[in-house]
Amino acid sequence: MATLQDIGVSAFINLVSAFAFLLAFALLRIQPINDRVYFPKWYITGDRKSPRRSGNFMAKFVNLNIKTYLTFLNWMPQAMKMSESQIISHAGVDSAVFLRIYILGLKIFLPVTILALLILIPVNVSSGTLFFLKKDLVVSDIDKLSISNVRPGSIRFFVHIALEYLFTIWTCYLLYKEYNIVASMRLHFLATQRRRVEQFTVVVRNVPHVPGHSISDSVDHFFQTNHPDHYLCHQAVYNANKFAKLVRKRDRLHNWLDYYQLKVERHPEKRPTKKIGCLGLSGENVDSIDYYKQRIKELDKRMAMEREKILKDPKSILPVAFVSFNSRWGAAVCAQTQQSKNPTLWLTDWAPEPRDIYWWNLAIPFVSLTIRKFMISVSVFALVFFYMIPIAFVQSLANLEGLERVAPFLRPVIELKIIKSFLQGFLPGLALKIFLYILPTVLMIMSKIEGHIALSTLERRASAKYYYFMLVNVFLGSIVTGTAFQQLHSFLHQSPTQIPRTIGISIPMKATFFITYIMIDGWAGIASEILRLKPLVIFHLKNLFLVKTARDREKAMNPGSVDFPETLPSLQLYFLLGLVYAVVTPILLPFILVFFAFAYLVYRHQIINVYNQQYESVAAFWPHVHSRIVASLLISQLLLLGLLSTKEAANSTPLLAILPVLTLTFHKYCKQRFEPAFRKYPLEEAMAKDIMERSTEPNLNLKAYLADAYLHPIFGTFEEEEEMAEVRVDKQQCHAGSSQTSEHSSPSPPHHVYHHSSPPQYVYNPPSPPQYVYDPSSPTHYAYHYEHHP
Amino acid sequence: MATLQDIGVSAFINLVSAFAFLLAFALLRIQPINDRVYFPKWYITGDRKSPRRSGNFMAKFVNLNIKTYLTFLNWMPQAMKMSESQIISHAGVDSAVFLRIYILGLKIFLPVTILALLILIPVNVSSGTLFFLKKDLVVSDIDKLSISNVRPGSIRFFVHIALEYLFTIWTCYLLYKEYNIVASMRLHFLATQRRRVEQFTVVVRNVPHVPGHSISDSVDHFFQTNHPDHYLCHQAVYNANKFAKLVRKRDRLHNWLDYYQLKVERHPEKRPTKKIGCLGLSGENVDSIDYYKQRIKELDKRMAMEREKILKDPKSILPVAFVSFNSRWGAAVCAQTQQSKNPTLWLTDWAPEPRDIYWWNLAIPFVSLTIRKFMISVSVFALVFFYMIPIAFVQSLANLEGLERVAPFLRPVIELKIIKSFLQGFLPGLALKIFLYILPTVLMIMSKIEGHIALSTLERRASAKYYYFMLVNVFLGSIVTGTAFQQLHSFLHQSPTQIPRTIGISIPMKATFFITYIMIDGWAGIASEILRLKPLVIFHLKNLFLVKTARDREKAMNPGSVDFPETLPSLQLYFLLGLVYAVVTPILLPFILVFFAFAYLVYRHQIINVYNQQYESVAAFWPHVHSRIVASLLISQLLLLGLLSTKEAANSTPLLAILPVLTLTFHKYCKQRFEPAFRKYPLEEAMAKDIMERSTEPNLNLKAYLADAYLHPIFGTFEEEEEMAEVRVDKQQCHAGSSQTSEHSSPSPPHHVYHHSSPPQYVYNPPSPPQYVYDPSSPTHYAYHYEHHP
Repeated sequence: MATLQDIGVSAFINLVSAFAFLLAFALLRIQPINDRVYFPKWYITGDRKSPRRSGNFMAKFVNLNIKTYLTFLNWMPQAMKMSESQIISHAGVDSAVFLRIYILGLKIFLPVTILALLILIPVNVSSGTLFFLKKDLVVSDIDKLSISNVRPGSIRFFVHIALEYLFTIWTCYLLYKEYNIVASMRLHFLATQRRRVEQFTVVVRNVPHVPGHSISDSVDHFFQTNHPDHYLCHQAVYNANKFAKLVRKRDRLHNWLDYYQLKVERHPEKRPTKKIGCLGLSGENVDSIDYYKQRIKELDKRMAMEREKILKDPKSILPVAFVSFNSRWGAAVCAQTQQSKNPTLWLTDWAPEPRDIYWWNLAIPFVSLTIRKFMISVSVFALVFFYMIPIAFVQSLANLEGLERVAPFLRPVIELKIIKSFLQGFLPGLALKIFLYILPTVLMIMSKIEGHIALSTLERRASAKYYYFMLVNVFLGSIVTGTAFQQLHSFLHQSPTQIPRTIGISIPMKATFFITYIMIDGWAGIASEILRLKPLVIFHLKNLFLVKTARDREKAMNPGSVDFPETLPSLQLYFLLGLVYAVVTPILLPFILVFFAFAYLVYRHQIINVYNQQYESVAAFWPHVHSRIVASLLISQLLLLGLLSTKEAANSTPLLAILPVLTLTFHKYCKQRFEPAFRKYPLEEAMAKDIMERSTEPNLNLKAYLADAYLHPIFGTFEEEEEMAEVRVDKQQCHAGSSQTSEHSSPSPPHHVYHHSSPPQYVYNPPSPPQYVYDPSSPTHYAYHYEHHP
Repeated sequence: MATLQDIGVSAFINLVSAFAFLLAFALLRIQPINDRVYFPKWYITGDRKSPRRSGNFMAKFVNLNIKTYLTFLNWMPQAMKMSESQIISHAGVDSAVFLRIYILGLKIFLPVTILALLILIPVNVSSGTLFFLKKDLVVSDIDKLSISNVRPGSIRFFVHIALEYLFTIWTCYLLYKEYNIVASMRLHFLATQRRRVEQFTVVVRNVPHVPGHSISDSVDHFFQTNHPDHYLCHQAVYNANKFAKLVRKRDRLHNWLDYYQLKVERHPEKRPTKKIGCLGLSGENVDSIDYYKQRIKELDKRMAMEREKILKDPKSILPVAFVSFNSRWGAAVCAQTQQSKNPTLWLTDWAPEPRDIYWWNLAIPFVSLTIRKFMISVSVFALVFFYMIPIAFVQSLANLEGLERVAPFLRPVIELKIIKSFLQGFLPGLALKIFLYILPTVLMIMSKIEGHIALSTLERRASAKYYYFMLVNVFLGSIVTGTAFQQLHSFLHQSPTQIPRTIGISIPMKATFFITYIMIDGWAGIASEILRLKPLVIFHLKNLFLVKTARDREKAMNPGSVDFPETLPSLQLYFLLGLVYAVVTPILLPFILVFFAFAYLVYRHQIINVYNQQYESVAAFWPHVHSRIVASLLISQLLLLGLLSTKEAANSTPLLAILPVLTLTFHKYCKQRFEPAFRKYPLEEAMAKDIMERSTEPNLNLKAYLADAYLHPIFGTFEEEEEMAEVRVDKQQCHAGSSQTSEHSSPSPPHHVYHHSSPPQYVYNPPSPPQYVYDPSSPTHYAYHYEHHP
């Protein structure tokens, strides 16, 4: 049990480190040399071309203007300047809605905090002593402010129950309002956005193989038969995974070549050499530049052959296709209906945006998907439940008595008061944080194995897994292992009504732990986010060793994007903590409020200046956010029920038991009312957009527009520099040609695909992602401009 | 505990009563006077016009041919004569698939019984004594053949586990095969059936009310905008519930009038009189015939006014419409997609067959549906769990010691050996059966309150409720209350792993109870089904008092239909019993086998000769049957697991724990593979049928065909005799008129609807339901002829 003093130490450490991060950020961001690290978004939108300001040579790299050093927090008001509609046009709906979650947190917890502190603290403090706790549990001062301090069987518990009702109603009210706003934001955005290829396109999986017919022929025949009035064309998908591997290898070699070439430029007197044997330690000594040039040449040959093979071999065409329709209505119909008698064939769904597609997974055979999902479910279960053991071990170390027993020689050090406080206040949270660091990568790999074909889906799935992990390990794990790890095993052998009791009773005691956790993860963690230490270091290393041209410098900076798989679950954890402790230990609430406010400012700044979203899912994650906050409400109600039932407040229990039922009903209603807006595309909308487009652009050549939208980006990577001019001409011809035959024509023959392959080049050169341009003339003040090659 | 002797007595009683029922049936069915009771289906198909056979006056009523009395079981071979495709054309797919369930039962349990008896009985008997049971539990002889007789910790339990694996695999194999067959039967039937109105029609609910526009206008406008190429017309729905009540009242009065008129005809000397006061006991004495004639006349006036009101008042048009499309493809698209931005408006779904619609529920406001469903869920839960108390009370009475304590004066009677056996063997099952008698009606009313609009859905929902009831009360209730009622309360306070143990341990002891249950419900119950005692009595009563014309006699016989809400759950209970006891007490299996074989014969006979299905859902109940048999498998595995864990056979437990996981995976696979065939209509199919129809009948006037298909049947009930001719003419004119404007025209104005309202008259006169006619010229040997007025 940490005392108030321990928390004070922890708060001090975390405040100091947060302050240090902010100061470092303030200093680094105004240096022109770091401009691309801290303002990459502006380079991408084209508003900023170069960090150079007027001044001498030195001013190119270091800011010498003293004034700017004095106002080191001035990024905060700057971050608040943009309006929401500006953020939508600047960074997308996903980012704007992501920021709304923090505002929602503030809206929920500000009144809750004020009420809880004003009402519950006096009620808890004035009541009695903690006489009922076992002697061996050290009672901290925090506990005196919590529900633990209320005498069992006291009538005061009705105050807690009344507040739980009030908080639930308030949260549900805000959740409903928010869901409504987000759903209409989504619908409004979809209704007003410009023509997009994915509006007309459906992805078809598990196309059956008919002997004697190619996949392309089957697709054509099937959709011409069953959607005769709406089918336009389709894009076959090639299995280019092997080719993609080669491209990646070539990139790696090219980086080495750049490195050595730069080295030679700087020190022309010394040619770098390299041993070509095992790990570069043995074997013949060769000139590095020649060696890498040679290897790249070899690889280019192999790639050309591989590409030829892919395009010529009918077996490399996957049983997947992107089918395009001549109207949004036709695509909406195809995406929402069952096509074939056999429900496992011809599976249709909305195509993701081209830049959102995770091409690698398109090659997964459909039959293996069920098995993959099953395997991953089992693995996630194992990961969630057996990851607990190492955490429990580390936390038992942080229990000082345990540590002294394990390593008695450390005793004199540990007994120093300041170190003891540090260890008790800081270590448990830190240990957990380190454990959590590698986890998102693992979960993302698991999601990829599951076989989803859109990056946005992958991120949502990874986020769901991370949430379960956090719930079981950070929340339940910390509560239960801290007091008695062995209780975990007995869970399965306990009655269902006993579990909330077991957890409920230890909840007030863990408040101090969660306060330190919030300070480490929520305060210092968020401050380190704004500093962008890792991209900063990587950018400068690349600048030193690889960058030759201005374009290389552009490529050296990866602005990143909001890390949904990690940030959404932690956000949801804060909601859970806030809702659970609102009634139990209200002193925890101000810490959460500070987190929400601070994180809001930081992420707002990052979204405006740094992040560049890879895709636009139009807030597709919102239903998950909503349902998990509702789940947090349910958990808080059940745990309060369990806690009260141990407090001999049995007469109040039935009163509280109604609340979960009401909450569930609320959730079901919201799901029915709003979720279809995130899953389906109403025909009414599709038809309205179709009609509008037909009246404004009657001569639109849709087929040309859709022609190569869903070509694997890999086919446009490495000869683009040489062939760019040729490709453009070729492409224009192709479009002119295909526009004459508005009805179906067979898909582009492979050699054709080989040539005009410029538009979607996402993976290797992020040159022209769709850009949201603020357009004050448009009635909605924003429009979505997809940069389309003529 | 019942002994072997008790079971013998019970078996004797039940066999005698079953035999008596069969004998009575054999005697009654060959009497010409009962011909309409036992062969009504043949009258409906038109194959039999009159029961009269050659002979004198006496032979009109009584069969005097001695020979026919000698072969009283000859209905059995007769019942086997029809092939499955003949049954489909004779009685529909629902009935044919219903019979397949019994065959499935036989297929599953015949090998299981043989194997279990041959292997398990020797294993169980040779092992040991029942020394481990407490002394106060009486050990019956049945238990010596069961798993109870195996010594704890014995290696013999591996035989039981191996057989459980074998039985599970066998059951799953047969279930898969059967699902496959039923699904393709369904698809084949849908693909080959003739043109039906419901193929082109979608029901739209929650049409929003636009001020200044009628519902009809809104519907027209919406579908013309959003389905311009496919929308044909729609049929508004009138709230005629009040009118329907009047019609029912009029029918009741008319019956009385008929009764008195018949009375006068037979005894012309005595005019019947009636007191018009309270309950017919006080007040003025009037002539009955005049009185009823007068009241009917008054009612006719009120009905005419009410009808006028309905048709003129725009408020009586409900926000529901039957929307028809010009192709099956258009209807399939509309039924499967979301129409409106607001997911609670313009809800589309397949329209049920006109004769399948439960009109009353169309008037339920859509907003109240969620609340209704919630309320009914709560009520079903309460019903399922608190119905247990009276059953437990009755069963504790059947426990003779308890009965003697309650009523000591009965002691001398009870102590008589024969009565004791009777009570112990017969009473528990009978008590349960009586309880279950009124239940289906209650559950059907509950389902109706839930607001489903199709009779088939109502029956499926009622069947689901009944299944839960049977599972909890008949199965679990009998197992747990019998040994210790108080254990029920402790369930909630037990750990989840403890519950299967508690149930598992008492399962072998309840085998005798379930054997008597099977004999009462399965043997004697089914035999009484074939006797049709209730319809027999009602028919003859009606014949005596109400029948004046031949048409009245036709109407007097309600052939009924397979009572799905009751038969499906009991069937599923037998599967559950068989699977649970297969390994535990295999001696129970032959009783189940006899049930399946006997019930198969009886229902086959009834389906061929008696029942007239009210609707054709094309085996829509099959997914429920399948999933409940899988649930039975899971229950049997969990209970065996619980039972074995009390037998100190812990080392075998992990081996058995894999089985539920595998079974669940199997279920998930089947669901994914086959269930869409029962829920959705693939566009491929729709398009194929559209194309075929267009080529065979290019000049089809679909609009005329669909014109009044979905008119409330109430509008065509009582003036049909007078207006029939007029209506026909009117109708033909209307069709000729509407066929010229193939594009949309506004729906028939109310006064028009008023007149031509003949086609679907289902509720009051079951005159012309669609008939399946065996058609050897068709490639599939059956076709579905919808009798359509020209």
